[in-house]
Amino acid sequence: MSEGNEKFVQDNNQQVGSSSEDPSPKEGAGSEKRQQKLSKAERIALRNQANSENSLVSKIDYLSVHDDTTQNFGEYHLIQSQAVAASASRVFSSVSSLNKDRVGEQVWIRARVDTIRPKGRSAFLVLRQSQYTLQAVVSESDRVSRQMVKWISKEVGEECILDIYGNVVEATVKSCSQHDVELQVWKLYIVSKVKGRLPIRVEDAGRPEWQEGVHVLRDTRLDNRVLDLRVPSQQAIFRIQSGVCQLFREILLREGFIEIHSPKIIAGASEGGAEVFKLNYFGQNACLAQSPQLYKQMAICADLDRVFEIGPVFRAENSYTHRHLCEFTGLDIEMAIRDHYFEVVDVLERLFIGIFEGIRQRFANEIELVQQKFQISPITYLPPGQNPRLHFPEAVQLLRENGYVIEDLEDLSSENEKALGKIIKEKYGTDFYTLASYPASVRPFYTMPKADDSRYSNSFDMFIRGEEIVSGAQRIHDWDLLESRVKAKNIPLSSIEDYMNAFLYGAPPHGGAGIGLERVVMLYLGVGNIRECSMFPRDPKRLRP
Amino acid sequence: MSEGNEKFVQDNNQQVGSSSEDPSPKEGAGSEKRQQKLSKAERIALRNQANSENSLVSKIDYLSVHDDTTQNFGEYHLIQSQAVAASASRVFSSVSSLNKDRVGEQVWIRARVDTIRPKGRSAFLVLRQSQYTLQAVVSESDRVSRQMVKWISKEVGEECILDIYGNVVEATVKSCSQHDVELQVWKLYIVSKVKGRLPIRVEDAGRPEWQEGVHVLRDTRLDNRVLDLRVPSQQAIFRIQSGVCQLFREILLREGFIEIHSPKIIAGASEGGAEVFKLNYFGQNACLAQSPQLYKQMAICADLDRVFEIGPVFRAENSYTHRHLCEFTGLDIEMAIRDHYFEVVDVLERLFIGIFEGIRQRFANEIELVQQKFQISPITYLPPGQNPRLHFPEAVQLLRENGYVIEDLEDLSSENEKALGKIIKEKYGTDFYTLASYPASVRPFYTMPKADDSRYSNSFDMFIRGEEIVSGAQRIHDWDLLESRVKAKNIPLSSIEDYMNAFLYGAPPHGGAGIGLERVVMLYLGVGNIRECSMFPRDPKRLRP
Repeated sequence: MSEGNEKFVQDNNQQVGSSSEDPSPKEGAGSEKRQQKLSKAERIALRNQANSENSLVSKIDYLSVHDDTTQNFGEYHLIQSQAVAASASRVFSSVSSLNKDRVGEQVWIRARVDTIRPKGRSAFLVLRQSQYTLQAVVSESDRVSRQMVKWISKEVGEECILDIYGNVVEATVKSCSQHDVELQVWKLYIVSKVKGRLPIRVEDAGRPEWQEGVHVLRDTRLDNRVLDLRVPSQQAIFRIQSGVCQLFREILLREGFIEIHSPKIIAGASEGGAEVFKLNYFGQNACLAQSPQLYKQMAICADLDRVFEIGPVFRAENSYTHRHLCEFTGLDIEMAIRDHYFEVVDVLERLFIGIFEGIRQRFANEIELVQQKFQISPITYLPPGQNPRLHFPEAVQLLRENGYVIEDLEDLSSENEKALGKIIKEKYGTDFYTLASYPASVRPFYTMPKADDSRYSNSFDMFIRGEEIVSGAQRIHDWDLLESRVKAKNIPLSSIEDYMNAFLYGAPPHGGAGIGLERVVMLYLGVGNIRECSMFPRDPKRLRP
Repeated sequence: MSEGNEKFVQDNNQQVGSSSEDPSPKEGAGSEKRQQKLSKAERIALRNQANSENSLVSKIDYLSVHDDTTQNFGEYHLIQSQAVAASASRVFSSVSSLNKDRVGEQVWIRARVDTIRPKGRSAFLVLRQSQYTLQAVVSESDRVSRQMVKWISKEVGEECILDIYGNVVEATVKSCSQHDVELQVWKLYIVSKVKGRLPIRVEDAGRPEWQEGVHVLRDTRLDNRVLDLRVPSQQAIFRIQSGVCQLFREILLREGFIEIHSPKIIAGASEGGAEVFKLNYFGQNACLAQSPQLYKQMAICADLDRVFEIGPVFRAENSYTHRHLCEFTGLDIEMAIRDHYFEVVDVLERLFIGIFEGIRQRFANEIELVQQKFQISPITYLPPGQNPRLHFPEAVQLLRENGYVIEDLEDLSSENEKALGKIIKEKYGTDFYTLASYPASVRPFYTMPKADDSRYSNSFDMFIRGEEIVSGAQRIHDWDLLESRVKAKNIPLSSIEDYMNAFLYGAPPHGGAGIGLERVVMLYLGVGNIRECSMFPRDPKRLRP
């Protein structure tokens, strides 16, 4: 990289002269136009003035940087809304907007220093703004004093935030996202500095495992998550995560759902399990909801008809695996059905394929960044309605045919799930499929038994690449049947009294499903560890940051 | 109401004959067409057959109801996905879709019984589907046996869920949302029954305070929230709430924000306050986040640039007022700013006016339902940028001019806020305005002090009708200044170590705001109590349902 940089830097220096004469600046070109028209003598005078003044650089008022007589480098006073109003006199350009079309423009950008490399009478910076990077070069010239270059080399470090005013010039910078331009720096101010030493370098945190160089352990990255999240591929993951949520909602609103918010602090255990976080609620025993399950069903009993919720769910499960978190974001749906729980599967299939397609279209750049780092291939799927739906006994048979040992009514192990994923991929050509009619014994008490064989249930899981992304079912809407299931599972009726009562007053047939947002993102992108897809993950060993 | 009903019922009976001869049924008219062509003799034979068979009504298979030989009334077997696939052979119409344009059609609907009134050889039902109601009439006729009417009068109670097949006829039913049609019932099946007695009647729960009749206390309603939520105006509130969330996101995504999910279980107290819910996290002390404040700021330090979050926030505050909840849905934003925190206010003003306008346009029907019940007028506001922004000293002066007593650096009491709301409404003609530059002493430690007068801060609240809906500020992004404020407020640095560290590595100037979803809905609609806008509210006295 460094060699390539040097080469183009020379090209760049040659271009500086011509582009600074460019008579048609397109943006932010108010007072700059005047400055361009200064005679050479005036410029030298200005430069000398700066040189003498800046032996001790004092702090700069950010409101004055448009003024030609203001020093063209330095550190701002703390930005404290000193301006009279919000009206920014400067127009800032985004790094991502800078490309060949804007060559010859003078622009303001505010960006972070990814790397800085002083070299003789120049300094070469890579600037970073979210997942976009741009090279900037400060070289001693008519506009730029030796003092300025020296000051920058000394004062500007990695992860500083800068305001830079400069000239967009053509260049080839393969290592930056903006690979056909660079910025020739005319003014440079420090907005925010790093205090002390960086615990990890962002460049190291972002280095793919397969690439030579310094690597930072995941735990160290997560300990310093604020720095780690600045890695462009990490930024991309969270932009995609945001996109998944938005597509989830867009599609469900289109399907007639409304969004609800159910309580997270509840009396009793949300699904009767033991793995709950307990708390004291003004003297009463309470716990954190393990899912919105009971409340979303109550919303259906309250005639909201089709509901979804996006919210945290809490599992006090002492599992330390690549796919478990103790707090994650649940994507939940619940809907009245007319006849059959496959009505829910139909919605989910449209939903997921809508999400897959939407992400592919809206976040192509982000997917590429993540895939570059993790070296993974995109998932395959068929159009809605064409992805296989196997019933549990069929899956058992497929596994047996392929030499796996499994009991009829036993849940699938992770290994068997993975194996089944491969078998189905080979047979049907898709990474995405549904497995239905699970044994009743491996599903929660509220799952509707199969009408003609109560050993099985009206339940399903959906998979990507052999890993479960959704779990759902028809729910029992009949109070008597529900009561018998609660008793059979030895759950104290008193612990779910409010839930039970909801089925006394005429409950509609209904079904739904629960999805883990982080898991969907992990499996869609093939990232390999769920912690990469949680901004500040929580597992049995991690409560911070 | 009953008189009107009787009158139109007679009209209806006259229309039956003609509409059953209608040669152009538009929907669900497969097998029905055949049935219409039965001769009178055949019909009578069918009717007699039914009469003799139905002395003891057995349960009906819901897959068979299209079959002419199946009894045309009864209770279904439990719907347990008996159908082979999701393909519903029946097309159901929504209650809201039935109007004059569909007169003469035969339709299936699945709806709940709002009220039922047997009367001689007829029974009059009001059917309810979410916020829509429709009158249905069963009258003895060629198609409907006396036995059927008797059975319905005996077996069908309020809040039952029914499948009804019937003929849409013209009628005037002022008391129903579908006021120009009613359904003449040909087939009726019970999908789901009520078990035991209803603890409250939905009609009573929905009765406006100003209207004569039985009223249900709010606490009783909330104790039976699943029934209470079936009230059309309550349904409307939650559809509007869902709409507010969606508009919030749509507008912020357009403004370049992304959605994040910050952890709710945190080590230490989220803002250093005492009013937190504590819990045990695998042997470590933890608590529930009082807001996403610290984490959304960390997301900005991690270069996510503009973020929002919709999620639960938890306040162990022993306040029992009309506007406090112990768990509510926070709408939070945080953004890097260039120069001034009014950049945040600009975004928020566009956001709120976008929400107000969006709700008005998309939920006109729902707003009307709520306003009918609570007898409130819509709020007034000016276009974005034109709503007043007062600085705190100006507000103090306005209050003093109007005879209120207030110290220079004292926070506004609720009474003073309300008074100010009235003064501003009178002076500027808007219910919506911003109050900025609060005294530093009444704002949290992370609030940026005013540059030229540190007694004040770069903070603001936004109001509707004199009640705060948003609280926001520029945040301190400088570690040293932040540290001095933390110390001044006697917060142990160790309790917010991760947060503090985020400011060591070059933090951008930023600001943001927090909003309570339930409060926005309450104030926009003028509902008067925040519990009406929380599906399952939590206050110091209420942990259930």
